Amino acid sequence: MVALSLLAVSLLALNPVSALWPEPTNVTTGTQTLFINEDIRVTYNGQPIVYTAGYEPSTLTSHDIVQGGVSRALDTIFQDGLYPWKFHLRNETDWEPSLFSLKWVNSLKITQTAFDNTTTFKPLAGQVDESYELTVDTNGQAEITAVSSIGVLRALETFTQLFYTYSSNNFYYTPFVPVSIQDKPVKSHRGIMLDTSRNYYSVAAILRTIDGCAASKLNVLHLHVTDAQSWPLEIEALPELSAKGAYRPDYVYTPADIVKIQLYGAVRGVQVILEIDQPEHTAAIGWAYPELLTAYNYEPYTWYCAEPPCGSLRLNDSAVDTFMDTVMGEITKRVYPYTAYFHVGGDEVTANDTLVDPSVGTNATDVIEELLQIYTDKSFARVRGAGLTPMVWEEIPLDWNVTLGSDVVVQSWLGVSSVESLTNLGYKVIDSNYNFLYLDCGRGQWVTFQPGESYTSDAPYNDWCSPTKSWELIYSYRPSANLTAEQANLVIGSEVAIWSETIDEVTLDTLAWPRASVMGEVLWTGELSEEGSSGTRDQTTAAPRLNELRERLLARGINAASVQMPFCTEGGDCIQPA
Amino acid sequence: MVALSLLAVSLLALNPVSALWPEPTNVTTGTQTLFINEDIRVTYNGQPIVYTAGYEPSTLTSHDIVQGGVSRALDTIFQDGLYPWKFHLRNETDWEPSLFSLKWVNSLKITQTAFDNTTTFKPLAGQVDESYELTVDTNGQAEITAVSSIGVLRALETFTQLFYTYSSNNFYYTPFVPVSIQDKPVKSHRGIMLDTSRNYYSVAAILRTIDGCAASKLNVLHLHVTDAQSWPLEIEALPELSAKGAYRPDYVYTPADIVKIQLYGAVRGVQVILEIDQPEHTAAIGWAYPELLTAYNYEPYTWYCAEPPCGSLRLNDSAVDTFMDTVMGEITKRVYPYTAYFHVGGDEVTANDTLVDPSVGTNATDVIEELLQIYTDKSFARVRGAGLTPMVWEEIPLDWNVTLGSDVVVQSWLGVSSVESLTNLGYKVIDSNYNFLYLDCGRGQWVTFQPGESYTSDAPYNDWCSPTKSWELIYSYRPSANLTAEQANLVIGSEVAIWSETIDEVTLDTLAWPRASVMGEVLWTGELSEEGSSGTRDQTTAAPRLNELRERLLARGINAASVQMPFCTEGGDCIQPA
Repeated sequence: MVALSLLAVSLLALNPVSALWPEPTNVTTGTQTLFINEDIRVTYNGQPIVYTAGYEPSTLTSHDIVQGGVSRALDTIFQDGLYPWKFHLRNETDWEPSLFSLKWVNSLKITQTAFDNTTTFKPLAGQVDESYELTVDTNGQAEITAVSSIGVLRALETFTQLFYTYSSNNFYYTPFVPVSIQDKPVKSHRGIMLDTSRNYYSVAAILRTIDGCAASKLNVLHLHVTDAQSWPLEIEALPELSAKGAYRPDYVYTPADIVKIQLYGAVRGVQVILEIDQPEHTAAIGWAYPELLTAYNYEPYTWYCAEPPCGSLRLNDSAVDTFMDTVMGEITKRVYPYTAYFHVGGDEVTANDTLVDPSVGTNATDVIEELLQIYTDKSFARVRGAGLTPMVWEEIPLDWNVTLGSDVVVQSWLGVSSVESLTNLGYKVIDSNYNFLYLDCGRGQWVTFQPGESYTSDAPYNDWCSPTKSWELIYSYRPSANLTAEQANLVIGSEVAIWSETIDEVTLDTLAWPRASVMGEVLWTGELSEEGSSGTRDQTTAAPRLNELRERLLARGINAASVQMPFCTEGGDCIQPA
Repeated sequence: MVALSLLAVSLLALNPVSALWPEPTNVTTGTQTLFINEDIRVTYNGQPIVYTAGYEPSTLTSHDIVQGGVSRALDTIFQDGLYPWKFHLRNETDWEPSLFSLKWVNSLKITQTAFDNTTTFKPLAGQVDESYELTVDTNGQAEITAVSSIGVLRALETFTQLFYTYSSNNFYYTPFVPVSIQDKPVKSHRGIMLDTSRNYYSVAAILRTIDGCAASKLNVLHLHVTDAQSWPLEIEALPELSAKGAYRPDYVYTPADIVKIQLYGAVRGVQVILEIDQPEHTAAIGWAYPELLTAYNYEPYTWYCAEPPCGSLRLNDSAVDTFMDTVMGEITKRVYPYTAYFHVGGDEVTANDTLVDPSVGTNATDVIEELLQIYTDKSFARVRGAGLTPMVWEEIPLDWNVTLGSDVVVQSWLGVSSVESLTNLGYKVIDSNYNFLYLDCGRGQWVTFQPGESYTSDAPYNDWCSPTKSWELIYSYRPSANLTAEQANLVIGSEVAIWSETIDEVTLDTLAWPRASVMGEVLWTGELSEEGSSGTRDQTTAAPRLNELRERLLARGINAASVQMPFCTEGGDCIQPA
């Protein structure tokens, strides 16, 4: 019954704590303050690195990547830093360090202990070592040690999160010296899937999303680039595909755009993986090549597809093979320098589409299974032939019993039992469990309902995966739920999904961030079975760090949504009493 | 089973339709095109109005208001207009009117048929006539006729919605001539409530919100300016209130800010109503004057208030009377020139607060009722004494049986049965039914839960009013649900509510718009008992207009959320089959 909160926040004020996100494996920090300015001497394996504001690497070489990482880190500290007023007690006026007799971070010594190789910049899951150590001592010596240049990038992101902007311009400091951090991720595939077909996203918006990934140590941007609604991808050999199938002639990713996006990601340690969804979700092809599709624009859509417009590539048509040889031959070549994977889709194949396909004429499961085995084998052969590894949605093996190679990565979306089934079959899995990781859910339908249909259920008002996946729910996500240790090892990581029926560039940031970063911490730190009951993570200690991450994302130009109000961040008690 | 959609969209292409929001009472449009440029001759009751880009009225006079409205309307058409590519068929290249032998809107003749009076610019519900007529004939003569200058403003907003931007710069046109519109609202109070205590909003964000109101013909912005978490309102006689109680010293609405906001609204026909919530929701006063509060910062909060920090003005304390005399005396004087109302709060009074108040010492209902009657009478006397009309939350009359005067407007939030009870008692009501109109709902908790608490229910993940109120749900909102005609007449209007525990300036726009505009149409057009079963509005005909409104809001600098993807707006069939 006594007011305890003021006491609690006073203690908090005396012990500022670092707010790193994702939380490092091991971290100790002190309470001494060091300032930093552009005079910091940076070396990389003994050679000086010259800080160049705005430097953008143009090659996939270790030095260029580290030069870019250092420049971005110092840009972040000096240009896009966080002035942390929200994280100090209200009306506390003396929380900033004194500007008398400043001590400085004099040097940042970066040591990479092994040579990068080609897989470093376009790794299969597990091929790149992202671990690092980071120290800042009281004499102003900072050190980063990592096995790979990507590990250096991860360390540099952590480094930026130690610093704050002073209320007077041109002063920047960390109050956490000495710092000692040893860190590495548990899961190697930590991604965002962005659907660029239902709404088009500008290259700038995609690059900004990569920035958010890098800031959160997410390492994959999966572009679900084509779907039924539009085909925004230029295929030079088939120019009509995007000329007719894009929403507008300029809502198209040109070959140069794709390379720009891929390279921008690769130099940040964010692999950009493209998906051309097939054989379903291909109605956008019909603007140029309707003859390749069955059930094209058929209605009512509920008979032929999951959402309009219907249309599926014909499974028994050599013209489709020729077409996909051309499409995949060109696009896989384009992305090969920057990624190890290509995603060939495979979700929501609808049996009635083969029923109305004159060259098939049945919706018999065994017939479709056989056709899909053949189709998928060809699809995978195109990917493998280009030196890439196939990814596919879960329905192909689980609903249609298609046998995949052991190289294939299966993306699951239907939840825990699907992941159980896939790992029982021995497949590598990326989990996008819609109950936790679909960021578009819970904001209402995009189809409209006739008035007569409006009172039958909640359907007119709530979408199929309502309610919204709150950050707390995502934080409770467990990629290994119900799995044995052996099965859990097959889950190479997870992706949040941003399906774009009701999301576009305007709403992207507030819906993606910081929720994607929340999944990022789950994957980076792994299952916490020792913490709390049933391995539940602790929201109460996460929220302060997440609040700060959000402000850091904002400062870097990413419009992340608010987590808690300043009352909470200024020391108010925002923990639910038991 | 046959593809019908292409036929359907072809017909649509042949008949472009205006997309006015809210839908006018009567509207007929044609198919001739007129262009418009800055040479248009505008007159107001026979006198020329000079279009002055960016003109901001500085006085509440009819001429200044109309001058501002005309200038804003032409700014909207010429600077912030809509290039409507999304609303034409994909790959259709000839949808723009020819630029040969242009015909022009030569003149806009504005006739106001009555004199404005002081209530025009600060009306009680019903005191201003917002009706208007708008015609554009094929000879290029546009006419607006309205009873009041506010009606002229409404007509000018409709006028802007008739025009589009041409793909080449500097051409603007309407394809809907001749136009004939007669229009007036059914409900006279159409508002947004914005909570500026839990998060602070800059003056710029508030002005932008007023812009959105004006564009949607909403006419009230209710600022829930103070609450428990922060006191962002400067009271010159009590400078410590905001100096200590605001989140930061500069997160304060100065007297000049308040006047700026009020005037900015008033000249747009948007009345800005301030609320100082009391006696609960006042913990922010405790930073300067803790002695005025009972249960200040008491924990666990669940015993003493709806959310932390607890604290309630003492009900039996003359120091509180003196304090509120000062606060209310000053602020009511400040807002008096611009509003007819002042809201004195009254929600969520918690009985345990009086139990721990030494001068009361009980939570007996009859004691609290008597104290609240006295407190409310004083509160109302301050408002009435300043020439304003009191508003109060529903709990005061419904939970605590306080008798109100017949002038008082009661704001309801707990739903249909509360509105029934209040109108049964004969009170005028503003409805903010949380089941439909709380725009913050459905995005997760802001309090965090200990791990042990996380598996007991959905509580850690969903907030109390989940799911999100989708635009379709809001469109189904019926302010007269369950009411007799006589009761329904007492519902003078409604407000969407934006409580700011998890919303701040970054997320404001996408959460407010266009959902606030959706309620706006419900209130403007009134109950549609003749349309569909049970008076359900038709989402299928609303969506195309709402899609266009959203793009118009975007073009005007308001980051409204997406409604439907371009596949739908480009003619795709996005109506759920029966």
